[in-house]
Amino acid sequence: MKRYRVIFQPMGISREMPEGITLLEAEIKAGIRPDAPCGGKGTCGKCLVNMIKDGVKEEVKACQVILDRDMEVEVSAGAYSQILVQGTSRSIALDPVVRSAWIDVEKCVIGDNRSDWTRFKESLAKEAGVDEAVILPNLPLAAGLYELLQANKFRCFVIYCQNAFGQVEVLDIRADETPVYSVALDIGTTSVVTYLLDGHSGEQLAVASVLNPQSQFGADVIQRSNHVIEQGGEEMAQVIRGAVDQLVGEICEKAGVAREDVYLIAGVGNTCMHHLFMQISPSALVHSPYNPSFSDPLIFPAGEIGLSIHPNGRLMFLSNIAGFVGADTVGVMLAVDFDKRKPLTLAIDIGTNGEMVLGNEERMIACSTAAGPAFEGAKIECGMRAAPGAVDHFMFEGTEMKLSVVGDRRPVGICGSGLMDVVASLLEVGLIDDTGRLQTEDEVETDCAKANVHRVVNLDGNVVFMLAFENESEDGRPVYLSQKDIREVQLAKGAIAAGIELMADTLGRKISEIEQVFIAGAFGNYMRPASACRLGMIPMELLPRIDSVGNAAGEGAKIAALNREEFEHSVVMARKCEFLELATHPDFQDTYVDNLMFE
Amino acid sequence: MKRYRVIFQPMGISREMPEGITLLEAEIKAGIRPDAPCGGKGTCGKCLVNMIKDGVKEEVKACQVILDRDMEVEVSAGAYSQILVQGTSRSIALDPVVRSAWIDVEKCVIGDNRSDWTRFKESLAKEAGVDEAVILPNLPLAAGLYELLQANKFRCFVIYCQNAFGQVEVLDIRADETPVYSVALDIGTTSVVTYLLDGHSGEQLAVASVLNPQSQFGADVIQRSNHVIEQGGEEMAQVIRGAVDQLVGEICEKAGVAREDVYLIAGVGNTCMHHLFMQISPSALVHSPYNPSFSDPLIFPAGEIGLSIHPNGRLMFLSNIAGFVGADTVGVMLAVDFDKRKPLTLAIDIGTNGEMVLGNEERMIACSTAAGPAFEGAKIECGMRAAPGAVDHFMFEGTEMKLSVVGDRRPVGICGSGLMDVVASLLEVGLIDDTGRLQTEDEVETDCAKANVHRVVNLDGNVVFMLAFENESEDGRPVYLSQKDIREVQLAKGAIAAGIELMADTLGRKISEIEQVFIAGAFGNYMRPASACRLGMIPMELLPRIDSVGNAAGEGAKIAALNREEFEHSVVMARKCEFLELATHPDFQDTYVDNLMFE
Repeated sequence: MKRYRVIFQPMGISREMPEGITLLEAEIKAGIRPDAPCGGKGTCGKCLVNMIKDGVKEEVKACQVILDRDMEVEVSAGAYSQILVQGTSRSIALDPVVRSAWIDVEKCVIGDNRSDWTRFKESLAKEAGVDEAVILPNLPLAAGLYELLQANKFRCFVIYCQNAFGQVEVLDIRADETPVYSVALDIGTTSVVTYLLDGHSGEQLAVASVLNPQSQFGADVIQRSNHVIEQGGEEMAQVIRGAVDQLVGEICEKAGVAREDVYLIAGVGNTCMHHLFMQISPSALVHSPYNPSFSDPLIFPAGEIGLSIHPNGRLMFLSNIAGFVGADTVGVMLAVDFDKRKPLTLAIDIGTNGEMVLGNEERMIACSTAAGPAFEGAKIECGMRAAPGAVDHFMFEGTEMKLSVVGDRRPVGICGSGLMDVVASLLEVGLIDDTGRLQTEDEVETDCAKANVHRVVNLDGNVVFMLAFENESEDGRPVYLSQKDIREVQLAKGAIAAGIELMADTLGRKISEIEQVFIAGAFGNYMRPASACRLGMIPMELLPRIDSVGNAAGEGAKIAALNREEFEHSVVMARKCEFLELATHPDFQDTYVDNLMFE
Repeated sequence: MKRYRVIFQPMGISREMPEGITLLEAEIKAGIRPDAPCGGKGTCGKCLVNMIKDGVKEEVKACQVILDRDMEVEVSAGAYSQILVQGTSRSIALDPVVRSAWIDVEKCVIGDNRSDWTRFKESLAKEAGVDEAVILPNLPLAAGLYELLQANKFRCFVIYCQNAFGQVEVLDIRADETPVYSVALDIGTTSVVTYLLDGHSGEQLAVASVLNPQSQFGADVIQRSNHVIEQGGEEMAQVIRGAVDQLVGEICEKAGVAREDVYLIAGVGNTCMHHLFMQISPSALVHSPYNPSFSDPLIFPAGEIGLSIHPNGRLMFLSNIAGFVGADTVGVMLAVDFDKRKPLTLAIDIGTNGEMVLGNEERMIACSTAAGPAFEGAKIECGMRAAPGAVDHFMFEGTEMKLSVVGDRRPVGICGSGLMDVVASLLEVGLIDDTGRLQTEDEVETDCAKANVHRVVNLDGNVVFMLAFENESEDGRPVYLSQKDIREVQLAKGAIAAGIELMADTLGRKISEIEQVFIAGAFGNYMRPASACRLGMIPMELLPRIDSVGNAAGEGAKIAALNREEFEHSVVMARKCEFLELATHPDFQDTYVDNLMFE
């Protein structure tokens, strides 16, 4: 049977297809979901596509075109699945890392010495559009191939993926069709999130998350690394692998699918989470010069680290860039298509560390600052995560203090976005001066400050601003911002601001040239850009250019799972991205101190 | 440090080497063992090499040349290890699949975000002369790399190999130097042989063999295949894997080396032995059209099939060509460098099957005949292997019958080479006529026949020729050649002769154009070429062109282990070799019957 190549635009998906099928059938075979309510009878007119020939487009009904030559067609925007990354207009064509297809293997005839596996490879190579030579052997699957082909009239359903070296790994060969699911995984220092994706449509079927159980060995990456250096990495690896495995079970149960039908887990995480998950020594990360031990992209059998999905299912993990710029940052970059952007762009992912990238298609540079802990509630006296009872927003309306509390109850503590708002608001009304000092009654000037200065009290020698006195709080304990907390905020925002400044310097660009700022991470969703700018964490002139892009690291993991070219793209991008070590930069101390003030 | 490329001729080994070392040091680094008794002082004059520049050679002392540019040198023939394949002049340069080297990894400095693994890869890539991108990740080795490099001043001893896809697999990274051994493995239907090789010098350190324990499930490939089809392949695989594992232990013990220092097992075997060893269903082999299920070359962790060598040690297996032309034939072809030969060459490997290849550098064709069992003693009434008591040679001197018996005792049975001699001798003196019939007293004409015709007796209705009457044999049972045995020999030799004829026909060549005949296999060592030609198994005109090449299949395995380009060469050769299916060839029956007679 002759085969022709069909190129589907705008995704650029290219596939060989058998002669004689309709273009509508070809679209379905390519994993594109055309709209064809009449079922291909030619009556509904919904399956319109543009045939492209010599640059000229002609609109035709896909169900009425018979494949009799190579073709290039443009399908309608709604016809292919896409991930929309919040705050950007990026859309991803579905061309997943794990693919599946029915293939017909040539029947063997006398005198033909091609093995079953060879003829299988030939068919798969055509289906996958690859050279037969890149298909890796799989002995356990080859073992029963003869029987399967005989029993199934030389037809089989194959599930396969392409590894980081462009080779095709066969994951299963079956007599029956099976659904294929993928999992996107984001391992954060604080929490672990998994997303179940339909491998055919790209649709997100379920989400589940859990606090990272490694926190029992230490809240931050340094403590956990030191634990591993002292005690060995096995237990540390086991708890996170166990948690991921349990989450996979959970999302499968939620969606009512079998975990054996999951063929891929695509992961991101910071470099330390990556190392602890892979049980690679984190020593390199916590000793100067703070390099990663391993940065390469990975695809290997998930079973090798105890994750139970399909027995041949793969675990994929994006590259790391540096010791404190990890696969999570690469996920963010992938989500916003960083290296293809023309405008000078700044992406900030504030997690436990503040990781940042500045640049565009010409040049990119990344750095990391130890900025996060303050905004995650660590080191803040009444700090907490954005859980029920957390003050997540704060403002003055006239002279009246307005608190927003997660879960609609009375305050228990302050989370990162609340902390920013409080400091920014107190600064705005003059309850904190430019040096960061809380003002006393005789120092305040504005009406609002005067009306609220009674909340500045001395608590056992510690000057604090009371967000909730004992009688205003949920649990009878006061919720406040201390002078020390303000200092923590100054240190954190000063580090981020200095990082932005030095990255721009290194690229030879001015802050004003930055055309777009993406704030990634759950924190980016909650944070008020105006507060971040009022603190001086992000230069005020960039305020109108700030967009929140949500959990872009996790979106990056999804994109990598759903489009293998994007995965390869992430590898190239990570390699191309330069790294700026702030701690030892000759100008860092100076720039940092400059940025500590609230001016 | 700058590096230059040195090409060593005549092997064509190409390596990058650091600037400033001597050419003598470069030779040693490349695994070449130059003769330099003065230790490089420049006094002995033994390390002479030819510098090649613009096609002109200049003799220099290697120890006095400092590497300061790219160089091409010709080393002396004695300076490199070689395997000499018996009966041919083929020599193999040592460039083993598994290589080892000390490498210096760049120290990490602040601001450099290259991971430990990345810097390790860069050094290894230079050492191995490959692109860094082809080095595969190895998580367990990356896991402790930081500590190893720190403790060992950024120097490490690495053992690595190149897989069938040109990728480099790192097998071990150590703080100390270790010897590296390889094993060559030949799995025959009847016996299994292992050879222990020094990975540095290529020297053979020990040999051990054992009868293939699969014979408990059947003597031939058909019986064993049927057993697997009925009972499953696990036990069949286990017994051969166990036997190989035990042989590896045995050769290591003989040579006094640790089996953990074995990093490679390079195997050959016929297609059925291959399938049973890999636990691939042999169904395809015993059902028409008798195709293999799997033919590709393999390199994978030996531990995956239960062989205990170094934990990352690899099992390599040559390609198969067809259902009954296997990796053993490819081994033979590799041993005689078949596809590089100019003269038209015929290689015959008579094991349980007779596998043959005819051709030269232009074109090659292989076929298989069910010829072997007769010459292995199967189906022959007094047949046995070439064990003590076997008549292995037979002739008439004048009118006197002369027997040669293995182990210098009285006869117990007849092995293949004896069988050939007996039939050839009886034909020669007229005790058998051209149709294969044993002659009676009144039919014989020659003196010799008349003197020995008393040995033609009727044994319970079965006409036989007595090699040893009851009183002449070891165990009191007569040893004889029966009329039925002669028919078996006719069937076997007829098949081989027909195969040779049809291969030549297919290539459009005449038998007289065959310039060289290689007989491979233990049988080839014992067999008298004159007898084979007298039987008509091999055309008489080729008699002066016959050479025995010993266990060339095993030599092929050794060559593949000791030179990775030769391994790749075997893959290409197997792919290039055509296959002739005799059983269904339109002319086979006719040609076969033609060749049954002893004319």
